[in-house]
Amino acid sequence: MFGNVILGQSGGPTAVINSSLCGAIEECLRQKEHPNSQIGKILGMRYGIEGFIKDNVVDLGAQSKEVIQGLKTTPSSALGSCRHKLKDTDFPNIIKQLKKYDIRYFFLIGGNDTMDTIHRIEKYCKEQGYDLRCIGIPKTVDNDLFATDHTPGFASGARYVALSVQQAGILARDMKKVDQFVIFQTVGRSAGWLPAAAACAKYEEEDAPHIILLPERPFDKNRFLSEVKKTYDKYGWVSIVCGEGVCYADGKSISDSDDKDKFGNVEFGAMAGTSAAFTLHKMITDTFGWRGEFQVSESLLMCAADRAVQLDYDEAYACGKQAVKLALDGTSGVMVTIQRESNTPYRYSLSSAPLSEVALGEKPMPDDFICSDRLFITEKALDYLRPLIGELPKYPRI
Amino acid sequence: MFGNVILGQSGGPTAVINSSLCGAIEECLRQKEHPNSQIGKILGMRYGIEGFIKDNVVDLGAQSKEVIQGLKTTPSSALGSCRHKLKDTDFPNIIKQLKKYDIRYFFLIGGNDTMDTIHRIEKYCKEQGYDLRCIGIPKTVDNDLFATDHTPGFASGARYVALSVQQAGILARDMKKVDQFVIFQTVGRSAGWLPAAAACAKYEEEDAPHIILLPERPFDKNRFLSEVKKTYDKYGWVSIVCGEGVCYADGKSISDSDDKDKFGNVEFGAMAGTSAAFTLHKMITDTFGWRGEFQVSESLLMCAADRAVQLDYDEAYACGKQAVKLALDGTSGVMVTIQRESNTPYRYSLSSAPLSEVALGEKPMPDDFICSDRLFITEKALDYLRPLIGELPKYPRI
Repeated sequence: MFGNVILGQSGGPTAVINSSLCGAIEECLRQKEHPNSQIGKILGMRYGIEGFIKDNVVDLGAQSKEVIQGLKTTPSSALGSCRHKLKDTDFPNIIKQLKKYDIRYFFLIGGNDTMDTIHRIEKYCKEQGYDLRCIGIPKTVDNDLFATDHTPGFASGARYVALSVQQAGILARDMKKVDQFVIFQTVGRSAGWLPAAAACAKYEEEDAPHIILLPERPFDKNRFLSEVKKTYDKYGWVSIVCGEGVCYADGKSISDSDDKDKFGNVEFGAMAGTSAAFTLHKMITDTFGWRGEFQVSESLLMCAADRAVQLDYDEAYACGKQAVKLALDGTSGVMVTIQRESNTPYRYSLSSAPLSEVALGEKPMPDDFICSDRLFITEKALDYLRPLIGELPKYPRI
Repeated sequence: MFGNVILGQSGGPTAVINSSLCGAIEECLRQKEHPNSQIGKILGMRYGIEGFIKDNVVDLGAQSKEVIQGLKTTPSSALGSCRHKLKDTDFPNIIKQLKKYDIRYFFLIGGNDTMDTIHRIEKYCKEQGYDLRCIGIPKTVDNDLFATDHTPGFASGARYVALSVQQAGILARDMKKVDQFVIFQTVGRSAGWLPAAAACAKYEEEDAPHIILLPERPFDKNRFLSEVKKTYDKYGWVSIVCGEGVCYADGKSISDSDDKDKFGNVEFGAMAGTSAAFTLHKMITDTFGWRGEFQVSESLLMCAADRAVQLDYDEAYACGKQAVKLALDGTSGVMVTIQRESNTPYRYSLSSAPLSEVALGEKPMPDDFICSDRLFITEKALDYLRPLIGELPKYPRI
C-alpha cells in the first residue's frame, strides 16, 4: 500500500523519545530508497493529535540530515506534545486530515493514553473503510506500560533518580551534624518504578537510600516513622525516596491529609505538586525535631540528556525503526515491545503486542519486587533494574 | 617551624570541595619528601571544628594513595562538615587540641563563616602565644565570597543550574499545550550568582530562561506578572528562575507573604524551604489560570559530581595546594583567592586576601551585572559566567 507517513509524539517527554523519532524517520528514509518503496512523504504532527486536527503538520523529510541525526540525542519531544483525550467529534476531523495528506502509515510515540488514542483511531478508520496502518512506539519514564519488559525513557529517568539519590546521600552523610534527613520525590503517580530505581545507588548498607516509599503499598505512618528512627539510630542520618502518588490504605494521597485542616485549603496538595515529600518532611520534623530537606525534581528527569543511558538511546531508536518495519510488513494495531533475553550480558529483542493490551492501564511493580519486611525493594527488583541503569560511580570514603 | 598539619571542611559542600582537600593533602605529601620538611603528620578533623573539639581526628597521611587520589572527583565533604558558630568557651578547648596534636598548620575549606572561624582561632592563638599558621581555602556554590573572582564549587553548581534550566526549558517549550510555565528555584539566600547562571542556557531569544529573579533586587509583583504575561504572549510558555531568598522591598521574603493568612501558619515558608517557587507558582495560577510546575533541587547542585566542571576541579585542587605552600612560606591569616587574568582564553592566577576582608559578609552581584529594564542579567554578567560554566549543548529544532 503506497501512502504518506505521519509521526507524532504524545504525553510527557523523556530524554530519549526523540531517538525513537529519529529511528522512525531514518528507517522511512532507508525504505524510500527501495525501487518499490511504499512510502511517499514523511510528515510530522506538531503537538500530537491536537496539532494534527488543527492542521499543524511539518515535512520531516525536508529536514536536513544534521537535524534528523541530532534528534537522536535531543531531549524532550521535538515535535511538540499534547495530552488530548479524544472526543467522538474528533474522529471525523482526524480522518479528514488523514485523507487530505493521503496518510497510510500512522505512528505515535507515547504511553498508555497514547496507545488508547492510536487504538481508537485505527478502529474508527477500519469502520470507515479507510486503510491505515497504525503502530505505537512505547515511551514513558514511569515504566508502567504492560506487555513490554520496560519502556524507552525509563532507564534514563531511573538513572537520574539513582544519581541524585546517591549524590544527595553522600551529602546527607557528610552533613549529618547539620541536617538529619533528606527526601527525594519522584514523579510516577501509580507505579513505583522510578522511586525503586534509587536502590541502585546503594553499594554499602549505610549508603542512600534507606527507605523507599512506593505507590504500590499503602502508607503506614507508624511503620514509616519507626523505620526512620531505626535508620537514624544506626547511622545518624536518613535518606528517603518517595513516589509522588503514595497513598494511605483508604486511597487518600498522603499529600492532602494531615495538613489539610490546619491550612484549611483542600487544594494545596494538588497545587503544590510537592506535597508527598512535604508531608513526610513535616511528619519527621514534628515527630523528631530534626532538620532536613526535600528535593522535588518533577519533570527534570524527563529531559536530562546528559544523564541519559546509551542503552536507552539505542533501544528507543530501535523501537522507532521497528515500528516502520512492522507497518511496511503489513502489521497494524500493535505497539512495539522490548523483550529481555538475558541479564548478564544484557540482551534484548523486539516484539509487539496488541494496542488493546497496552491501553488497559498502568503496570505496577510485581509483588516479588517489593520487600514485605522493610520499606525497600528486593534483590529480584535490583536484578531487573541494574542492567538498565548501568553502574553508578564508586567513591572512596575516609 | 616544624609541626603537624590539620585540615577540615566546613559549611555546605560542593561537587569539588574534596578536590581542594586532595590538593592540600598531596601538597603536604610532596613537601614531606623534602629533606628539611617542616611537616609532620597530616591530620583531618571530622565534622569540622565541632569534631575537632570533640577529638574526632583522622590520620589523612595513613590513607591509601587511591583514596587520596579518588577524593579529587568525590562530591560532598569527605571529612564531614558542620555549621558550628564558635563560642568563647570553645577557644580553650581548641588550643588544647592543637597542643595535643602539636598542630602548627591549620587549614579549613569553607565560606565566609568558615573564614571567620579561622580568623578568630588565629587571633586567639596569637594572644595565647601559640604559633599557628592558618590559611583559608575558599569554597561555596553561592559564589558570595569577597576578595576572590569566584569560589571553587560555584562553576559546578552553576552548570547544574544552567543544564537543568536548559533541559526543563526545552521540555516546557515542547509541552506548552499542557503546561504554560516552569519555575526553577536555586539555593543562595542573599546573592543571585546561581540563578543568574541559568542565563548561560540561552542561545536563542525564545530559549529558557525568560525571567531571572535575583535576591539583589526587590520583588515587584506587578512587574513580575507583566513580564510573565509578555513572555507568554510571545512564546506561549514561560521559564522562570528564582533565588530562594528573593524579598519584597520591605525585606520580607516572598515565601511567607500572600499565603500566610490563608494557611494560618507563619512557619510554613521556612519549613517548606520551597516557598519562593511555590509563591510564584500560586501567583501565576491565580492570575492567569495556567498550569505549570516548580522544581526545587535544593542541595543537589552541591554534590552533582557528574555535572562538575573540569576547570572547577582544577582550581579547587590548585587552591588546596596553594594554601599549603603559603603556610610553609610563612604566611598566615589569609584565604587563597582566584584572580581572573583573561576571559578568552580563560586564564587565572592565585593570590590571597586577609581573612578579615573575606569574613565581612556576602558578596552580591554588582549593579552592572543586573538589567534595569527587564528581569535578567547583562552581557557583562554573561561574559563573567560563561568561561566558568563552559559551553552548553546545542540541540536541533524542527
